[in-house]
Amino acid sequence: MIKVGVVGATGYTGVELIRILLGHPQVQLQVVTSRGERGQRLDALFPNLRGNTDLVFTDPDVSVLSGCDLVFFATPNGVAMTMVPQLLAAGVKVIDLAADFRIKDRKLWERWYGMEHACPQLLEQAVYGLCEVNRQAIRGASLVANPGCYPTAVQLGFLPLLEQGLVDVHSLVADCKSGVSGAGRKAEVGFLLCETSETFKAYGVAGHRHLPEIAQGLTLAAGREVDPTFVPHLTPMIRGIHATLYADMVAKDVDLQELYEQRYRQEAFVDVMPKGSHPETRSVRGTNLTRLAIFRPQGGKRVVVLSVIDNLVKGAAGQAVQNMNLMFGLEETAGLLGVAVLP
Amino acid sequence: MIKVGVVGATGYTGVELIRILLGHPQVQLQVVTSRGERGQRLDALFPNLRGNTDLVFTDPDVSVLSGCDLVFFATPNGVAMTMVPQLLAAGVKVIDLAADFRIKDRKLWERWYGMEHACPQLLEQAVYGLCEVNRQAIRGASLVANPGCYPTAVQLGFLPLLEQGLVDVHSLVADCKSGVSGAGRKAEVGFLLCETSETFKAYGVAGHRHLPEIAQGLTLAAGREVDPTFVPHLTPMIRGIHATLYADMVAKDVDLQELYEQRYRQEAFVDVMPKGSHPETRSVRGTNLTRLAIFRPQGGKRVVVLSVIDNLVKGAAGQAVQNMNLMFGLEETAGLLGVAVLP
Amino acid sequence: MIKVGVVGATGYTGVELIRILLGHPQVQLQVVTSRGERGQRLDALFPNLRGNTDLVFTDPDVSVLSGCDLVFFATPNGVAMTMVPQLLAAGVKVIDLAADFRIKDRKLWERWYGMEHACPQLLEQAVYGLCEVNRQAIRGASLVANPGCYPTAVQLGFLPLLEQGLVDVHSLVADCKSGVSGAGRKAEVGFLLCETSETFKAYGVAGHRHLPEIAQGLTLAAGREVDPTFVPHLTPMIRGIHATLYADMVAKDVDLQELYEQRYRQEAFVDVMPKGSHPETRSVRGTNLTRLAIFRPQGGKRVVVLSVIDNLVKGAAGQAVQNMNLMFGLEETAGLLGVAVLP
Amino acid sequence: MIKVGVVGATGYTGVELIRILLGHPQVQLQVVTSRGERGQRLDALFPNLRGNTDLVFTDPDVSVLSGCDLVFFATPNGVAMTMVPQLLAAGVKVIDLAADFRIKDRKLWERWYGMEHACPQLLEQAVYGLCEVNRQAIRGASLVANPGCYPTAVQLGFLPLLEQGLVDVHSLVADCKSGVSGAGRKAEVGFLLCETSETFKAYGVAGHRHLPEIAQGLTLAAGREVDPTFVPHLTPMIRGIHATLYADMVAKDVDLQELYEQRYRQEAFVDVMPKGSHPETRSVRGTNLTRLAIFRPQGGKRVVVLSVIDNLVKGAAGQAVQNMNLMFGLEETAGLLGVAVLP
Repeated sequence: MIKVGVVGATGYTGVELIRILLGHPQVQLQVVTSRGERGQRLDALFPNLRGNTDLVFTDPDVSVLSGCDLVFFATPNGVAMTMVPQLLAAGVKVIDLAADFRIKDRKLWERWYGMEHACPQLLEQAVYGLCEVNRQAIRGASLVANPGCYPTAVQLGFLPLLEQGLVDVHSLVADCKSGVSGAGRKAEVGFLLCETSETFKAYGVAGHRHLPEIAQGLTLAAGREVDPTFVPHLTPMIRGIHATLYADMVAKDVDLQELYEQRYRQEAFVDVMPKGSHPETRSVRGTNLTRLAIFRPQGGKRVVVLSVIDNLVKGAAGQAVQNMNLMFGLEETAGLLGVAVLP
Repeated sequence: MIKVGVVGATGYTGVELIRILLGHPQVQLQVVTSRGERGQRLDALFPNLRGNTDLVFTDPDVSVLSGCDLVFFATPNGVAMTMVPQLLAAGVKVIDLAADFRIKDRKLWERWYGMEHACPQLLEQAVYGLCEVNRQAIRGASLVANPGCYPTAVQLGFLPLLEQGLVDVHSLVADCKSGVSGAGRKAEVGFLLCETSETFKAYGVAGHRHLPEIAQGLTLAAGREVDPTFVPHLTPMIRGIHATLYADMVAKDVDLQELYEQRYRQEAFVDVMPKGSHPETRSVRGTNLTRLAIFRPQGGKRVVVLSVIDNLVKGAAGQAVQNMNLMFGLEETAGLLGVAVLP
Repeated sequence: MIKVGVVGATGYTGVELIRILLGHPQVQLQVVTSRGERGQRLDALFPNLRGNTDLVFTDPDVSVLSGCDLVFFATPNGVAMTMVPQLLAAGVKVIDLAADFRIKDRKLWERWYGMEHACPQLLEQAVYGLCEVNRQAIRGASLVANPGCYPTAVQLGFLPLLEQGLVDVHSLVADCKSGVSGAGRKAEVGFLLCETSETFKAYGVAGHRHLPEIAQGLTLAAGREVDPTFVPHLTPMIRGIHATLYADMVAKDVDLQELYEQRYRQEAFVDVMPKGSHPETRSVRGTNLTRLAIFRPQGGKRVVVLSVIDNLVKGAAGQAVQNMNLMFGLEETAGLLGVAVLP
Repeated sequence: MIKVGVVGATGYTGVELIRILLGHPQVQLQVVTSRGERGQRLDALFPNLRGNTDLVFTDPDVSVLSGCDLVFFATPNGVAMTMVPQLLAAGVKVIDLAADFRIKDRKLWERWYGMEHACPQLLEQAVYGLCEVNRQAIRGASLVANPGCYPTAVQLGFLPLLEQGLVDVHSLVADCKSGVSGAGRKAEVGFLLCETSETFKAYGVAGHRHLPEIAQGLTLAAGREVDPTFVPHLTPMIRGIHATLYADMVAKDVDLQELYEQRYRQEAFVDVMPKGSHPETRSVRGTNLTRLAIFRPQGGKRVVVLSVIDNLVKGAAGQAVQNMNLMFGLEETAGLLGVAVLP
């Protein structure tokens, strides 16, 4: 059994991570921390957990966390980087679900996140945890930067095209729609039901923190600089991301359906749908799956890729557990095989 | 492995039953029938099942179904009764998720359901599958009438009071609220998103088919005739029933919290919440749990019980599997231990 | 033109009041105050108002407000009572949409609202603004206490029965369901979309502040003490209250449909639906209407009344404008005749 | 008073049209037809209309409709074209809210709509009712083809760029999101609340009937052939369209904010939001407004335009009334000045 700790488990990513870990056959959840909820039972805050755990939130304490084999950070940006060096030094592996270690370029990170990085020396060593790209490196990693939700959906959708050099790298548009849980469990007027249901809007069009992460990943895949346009939208639902991806083909006569099926044939968590399908976000709700569909409307130069994930699972907690499975040599799908509840 | 068939698996109860059965360690799902979808793969109709089954819908055929150990009917009312006698004769056990065998009084049934009963001789033998009441009888049953969704939530909420004779049997009010999935997967204008979201209404106030079922169960528990008032309401959400139950106490000085905790101490699927709690339907979504809370506002004569279930699980497919587990001597909770996905 | 000020117009009641006032032919909206939004344009906070007003939020200032004929308070409980005496002294009429003047019994108010009353001497003089009951008194009032949302729906539903002495005054149950806007525009985790959509729950079962207000109104109508049981529920929608009301008849052979139609024949904002109807909250959304339906299930002793309003209109801003119309001798329906947008 | 008839008023476009017409000061609604609901009162089908009309649905009858000054068709595609020639011959003006007269190229129309056109001789004469483009022609028209919902949002968003020749006409992408009411009031499983809430999906990616209409309008604006990529999505809400529009600039140093403000300065129903705004669909709900915002992320070549409308108002019934106002020399905004109800 892997002894696991979770730092900052009071948000939506946190409770989802705990739900998955409690059902994982090789995990023993030992420590769950929260400054604000110290002393409170987990199942008092999250009644869905009643009967499944007696754990109580404690203050985050490196000496206690050092007793774990692995610590997940489900904290706001900027928290993990203050504790990770000590944990690594104590031989604990770390997966950060926030953004502290996602961007290799320290200056770029500091510009977008508006703070100084506390341990830039670890940026090189941290492995970007997009399993379908970095599987081997993750297996050997001590520190994994779990990808953001939008970047996961966008990268998995664009990768086959970029890896094969089939599209104009200056033509990429990622029009993304997210459920409200992506904003987290924060007391803000903007995410009240009365502000977000029965309405739809874009946000962050001028610039969103996931843009440099997306650009970094796509650039690596393409082997040259990619400058996507990324527009996120808030959708009146709880979970789910739908990325609608556009690119202009430079190649001709490519069987895109076949290309995607080949690229992801071995991937347990990427499902290339039959030609002509329109994947729905609910078909992956609560699961670690990505579902993709590929179109070329009117047979023109523009390719359209549809990519759906559950932002809290493949876009956060589930992918973190997938990373854990790789880091500890477990079956990659362990604890991650539930079927989406529908309707 | 128990060989299982499902008749009429294209509705919401059906797909939920299949989801649970596919995850059940002792079940082999052999036959899934639908006249309308014959030849279609299950996972084409329900993409959440992709990767979990290769089954194809077939026409319902008694000779094929007779190869099963157990057949579930997830059909409209009036279908099961035309096939059950032959299946029982062939040694197959049956659980009917519709209403054909729920009411012992044939004339009462025919009045409320507006049709003649096709096999009234089986009404006596059929066991009403409310496990928390009829566990022993279910263990020996060949034919189980799975309870309705509202009746499950209402009976589990009222039972302790009636069994102990603590309330005026003429004072009972069951004000119930259901998600729209209770109406089934039917092409009707009344259940479109545009007709049911952002609005709330009662329906069937003059009389609803679940009333005689509720009255029958409560009368059995009380040992004398109970005549509840039952008002169902349509709530703008997919899943969940919240029953708010009212009764006038005739007894004094009873510790109701203690009473309920005692009554349900051994029950895996009834969770009596701590005093003062307000259970939410989402805390049981996708699970077989009932959550209850008991109040006596202002210390008056009136007791208020809150009872929540997932109408498609404890109110249908989950309870059916709980019944199956009892009928086949399995662990009662087998296949039913998932944690609700939240948020 | 009536010169009008609104204190505390940044909540949902406030913006709805402003929407109605901007469309009112005899109103000139002069002052709109908010400490938090001082200097901000109204239409920057509420883009639906763009093109309809150039008003800017100012600090609340009695000397400025004294230039108005009428001041509405759309503030939290306890604010109006600190400013009302000065405004009345300056000859300004006041309508308080909060609870400061709703309860005649000062001690009862202080117990439920947890604060000392700042001007108890005005409690007698304040008129409870339920127009269908107190029309004459409102016409002559300087200070009107606008009713709460639940109390409006419940009282209008029960009044005919109590006024005629037809029901057991100890048998009343008001099972009420409200949209989330009833909680206001406050930054609280509990009212996020992710906490309130796709779920249903009761709250305040042990005691809610609207209970003494309801009991006071029903007691006045009945001419003796009425002790209702009141259970509010949070419903996953923005607007609307549905009150399902239960009472035991003591009289026989009463034509309840006729009784209600007679009682409300002259009322512009109470619509008694045809027998057998189930009013939906959306049919009154954005309007000042109450829709009622009356049932006597199975012809038994229990009567069931369904009562729907828009909590922000008839339950708050609309009723306040109806009160204004009466206080200033205008047509009672002025500014209040829009049709609900459906779907 | 203009005598008006509405053919096919049982859908969402129809009821919205009736709501607007009942509030229009210069309209007398004379005839409302529906084969399916013949003899039924309008307010029985749509309770929001109770108290506002005593009209009863009648069978569509050209001789009766000929008594009107204007007939609206709120029917499925292919109905209006069978009746329009007789109505025009009788001197009645016609506005078709369906697609029969939107496409000038008969063959193109027949290909996308899968039927033969019944009166191709009228295609030339019909005026495309996008008021912000064709105002003068509409004033003199007898037959107006009311634009589709998506085409309205997309054209108003792209027009200034194309009219000025600022963008590469082969670079246009219109990623559009619509509420479910766009699918109409039809009994189809796919639009049940349980199929469309808590999920998001694209549809018609391979080709949607609004594509040729969009291409026709943009081509006219650009003066050369434009071949946009158009992807519609179904959003879990009732009303609203959000078009996110992408194009590559060929011009430099253009003040796009200024361009849009100039283009729409005289337009009552197009609101160019302040720089940096993200318009929400709810801000135009129930109104005839279009709200636009223009971005150029990272100062790159790609321009992003956000365009929101209410699909049932500016995208259907409201624009139809705007057309009527122009055709009959009324104030263009008559009957169309309500403020969006928020929240």
